[in-house]
Amino acid sequence: MKTKIAVNAASGKMGQQVISQATSHSQVELTAAFCRSDHRLLGRQVGFNNIEYTSDIEQGLNQSDVVIDFSLPEGTMELVKQTAKTKTPLIIGTTGFSDEQISELKDAAKNFPVLLAPNTSIGVNSTLALLSLAAKMLGKQADIEIIEAHHKHKIDAPSGTAIRMGQAIAEAMGENFNDLKTTDSRFEKRTRKKGEIGMSVIRAGEIIGEHKVLFALDNEIISIEHKAQNRHCFAEGAVEAAVWLAQQPAGFYTMQDFLANR
Amino acid sequence: MKTKIAVNAASGKMGQQVISQATSHSQVELTAAFCRSDHRLLGRQVGFNNIEYTSDIEQGLNQSDVVIDFSLPEGTMELVKQTAKTKTPLIIGTTGFSDEQISELKDAAKNFPVLLAPNTSIGVNSTLALLSLAAKMLGKQADIEIIEAHHKHKIDAPSGTAIRMGQAIAEAMGENFNDLKTTDSRFEKRTRKKGEIGMSVIRAGEIIGEHKVLFALDNEIISIEHKAQNRHCFAEGAVEAAVWLAQQPAGFYTMQDFLANR
Amino acid sequence: MKTKIAVNAASGKMGQQVISQATSHSQVELTAAFCRSDHRLLGRQVGFNNIEYTSDIEQGLNQSDVVIDFSLPEGTMELVKQTAKTKTPLIIGTTGFSDEQISELKDAAKNFPVLLAPNTSIGVNSTLALLSLAAKMLGKQADIEIIEAHHKHKIDAPSGTAIRMGQAIAEAMGENFNDLKTTDSRFEKRTRKKGEIGMSVIRAGEIIGEHKVLFALDNEIISIEHKAQNRHCFAEGAVEAAVWLAQQPAGFYTMQDFLANR
Amino acid sequence: MKTKIAVNAASGKMGQQVISQATSHSQVELTAAFCRSDHRLLGRQVGFNNIEYTSDIEQGLNQSDVVIDFSLPEGTMELVKQTAKTKTPLIIGTTGFSDEQISELKDAAKNFPVLLAPNTSIGVNSTLALLSLAAKMLGKQADIEIIEAHHKHKIDAPSGTAIRMGQAIAEAMGENFNDLKTTDSRFEKRTRKKGEIGMSVIRAGEIIGEHKVLFALDNEIISIEHKAQNRHCFAEGAVEAAVWLAQQPAGFYTMQDFLANR
Repeated sequence: MKTKIAVNAASGKMGQQVISQATSHSQVELTAAFCRSDHRLLGRQVGFNNIEYTSDIEQGLNQSDVVIDFSLPEGTMELVKQTAKTKTPLIIGTTGFSDEQISELKDAAKNFPVLLAPNTSIGVNSTLALLSLAAKMLGKQADIEIIEAHHKHKIDAPSGTAIRMGQAIAEAMGENFNDLKTTDSRFEKRTRKKGEIGMSVIRAGEIIGEHKVLFALDNEIISIEHKAQNRHCFAEGAVEAAVWLAQQPAGFYTMQDFLANR
Repeated sequence: MKTKIAVNAASGKMGQQVISQATSHSQVELTAAFCRSDHRLLGRQVGFNNIEYTSDIEQGLNQSDVVIDFSLPEGTMELVKQTAKTKTPLIIGTTGFSDEQISELKDAAKNFPVLLAPNTSIGVNSTLALLSLAAKMLGKQADIEIIEAHHKHKIDAPSGTAIRMGQAIAEAMGENFNDLKTTDSRFEKRTRKKGEIGMSVIRAGEIIGEHKVLFALDNEIISIEHKAQNRHCFAEGAVEAAVWLAQQPAGFYTMQDFLANR
Repeated sequence: MKTKIAVNAASGKMGQQVISQATSHSQVELTAAFCRSDHRLLGRQVGFNNIEYTSDIEQGLNQSDVVIDFSLPEGTMELVKQTAKTKTPLIIGTTGFSDEQISELKDAAKNFPVLLAPNTSIGVNSTLALLSLAAKMLGKQADIEIIEAHHKHKIDAPSGTAIRMGQAIAEAMGENFNDLKTTDSRFEKRTRKKGEIGMSVIRAGEIIGEHKVLFALDNEIISIEHKAQNRHCFAEGAVEAAVWLAQQPAGFYTMQDFLANR
Repeated sequence: MKTKIAVNAASGKMGQQVISQATSHSQVELTAAFCRSDHRLLGRQVGFNNIEYTSDIEQGLNQSDVVIDFSLPEGTMELVKQTAKTKTPLIIGTTGFSDEQISELKDAAKNFPVLLAPNTSIGVNSTLALLSLAAKMLGKQADIEIIEAHHKHKIDAPSGTAIRMGQAIAEAMGENFNDLKTTDSRFEKRTRKKGEIGMSVIRAGEIIGEHKVLFALDNEIISIEHKAQNRHCFAEGAVEAAVWLAQQPAGFYTMQDFLANR
């Protein structure tokens, strides 16, 4: 039986990608696409599907097994009021919540399943889990280096994903990433500091995003690498997690829970 | 305080490497080196250390916190009779045991710690644990490919380690590796079979040993790689595991237990 | 000054990509787009440009510095009759010519510049030149392995590009690729044959196309790799070559000439 | 017929490695090993070979086809006086010559073959030639990044080899490397500068030495990589070059000449 999926903020960039992903997935049926009551898409057909953009969230949730939300914090908090009534499982890809808002989401999750994912990519989240395990097994003994490569237009360095990888590694070792990362350049005459986490930044062409972490022992090297081939992985992960969440009991979940128990 | 290590079959190839590793390790003291009573090395000094090769196993064990054994199954079974008396923790790197012998080892382990490791490399065992986790998270969704590279002299293909990697992956997915691996060549006109585990074999120069496993989703690729830089990793892993095992209660352990709880 | 480019078979898949590439290139101006006189696009505007699809090839060539052709052999031979009159430099990305047709193209090239490129990718052609040089320097001494990876849908194995790489290497060594390549599987017990060129085929996910060639000496390994990130590289290479060809004297050229003298 | 090789400064570290390489090479015969007249090895047997360490350079040269020199500049200048008499082809791996001394070597080379190689690795020199070609074909269009990895004990960063690679690339493009390389850290908010050559430094474990150069176009990436597996490559390259130089006419040569014409 197909999982019936509703999409919040359906007219947004991520909403559109989720719709595209959901309608091409063999085990999923798109059952509702929400937009604001004053949006120009309201009442229009959603792609080639037999549904229309709607602002009637309650009706849409009643027709769906799960809802995916990529919006803004206020939009999410509004949606939660509805899902609290319908007990509809909720995937939240929105970011920027205050601590208070997160507390509210956790409270709500006592009555229905909520999965909060600042990053919905299956690959990135799997890689974080692998890095955490590798750090537990090898972290105290190995030299750790994080190398990331992105396109020439990228402004941030190192990438947010590289930093989260470093944090996952440090946390697994009971350390603070900021204490371990190389903050100065490697361009000076010195040997490697014991325990430092090296960071290398490559910028070239139109590389979508590559992250590689080395765990180097003296006689052998283990490495874990993630390569993005395009930017569809966020919508793909959200839809896969939605299929899973629709079958879970009430509770507060992360992508790690989904990956560990799918 | 340094861990006092005894080495069984100390005159053998692996015994010599363990001695070399133990004597260069800052937290380890070599306290005994066993050889047969008729061996030409008996009574000779062990390297530049203040001990001599001896056949008095009981005395050697009494002076040690843990013993490392790379010998033959019969040699190990003889040693176990002694460690059962002294309760000396025992690292077994020997291979080729019968099922009966393994049962005996497990029985003995009820009274003192025994760690059985057909492969003592920390890197290979860590990689197997990572592959198992990756397979649980991604196995059903991803295309999996194992690529291994070794020197031009190697006769076996794929390598034993590549096969064990495939088995670890298949086991984590509840499958049988022999049902999944590509047994025919890729050199034919066909698309990839859903669920097959591809195997690629590279032979060139003097490559010590490299294994890479791809987990390819449609939009992103996760890969886990192990590279051996020399052949000292087995002795290194045995010594590190010995330091750990010396602190453990009675029980039967594997390298995975050591890596998960070090 | 911008290079004025005409596109033959402009309504075709490659024609459309060339138009897209040409109109986004800062040193290029699209001046003509040819289609058949009975084509539905005839007279329609080309994208957001101030030109229309036309079947008046002579006029179009008169307004252009160079013409790019991705069509069928007959289409190319028709076009050459016109470029012979206008002396318009001609990039031919079309494939499938008979030996006779190629002779005709070479004859025509005595009077104006013609560049024939069965593959117009700058990256692939550069890689072929690098492989040729590497084979000259290292081929007799090194173990050579070609590893290619493509998406799960690909039917051919090894890829056509992998075969052309092998041919370029063998040619540079004065050998025949068919005599060197591994035709049997590596899945058998044997050491590497001296002089063989190993071929490995990886199929996974949606990998666009990756080719890596190892030249392994006993103490060091040199490798050359090409990764396609998308399929726009053919149009990009054709446009770059067109800018160059517009400045060349009459003659018969290949992509290697362009790369060596750009 | 085997090439008869004499080794200068035979008791030195590189001299010993050259002897080891020469005596295990099927097409080479070690015919002389020179040391100072007051050296403790004088008159002793060279390994298991039928020759003794000698200070009689003239006799040794008369028995040899070529001589390999890894010494100090003064040692080399002394040796050249002898080879000028015997016309014995001379491989110089010594470094640190003054401009005057190099002029003298070039003068001497008018009468017999001299090959001067600050680095005798075949792999490194081949890689430099490949980088030079790649830079000519792609340098003006591509984003270039140099990534090097070495063991944790290394003090210099970037490595000398990475710098020479950058210089070879810049030279091929008619540029000065110092004007192109990233001198500031990448750890700041900015997009990539057009034309900069990025440098990344990885330090981990006991990595012998790896250098990778990316030439990234927008749609495809070409990379050239060199990996050292041990430190024998310098002796290996010197012996291979010696076999070649023994057949060459008088003249001043580099490793590039050897690689281009072997």
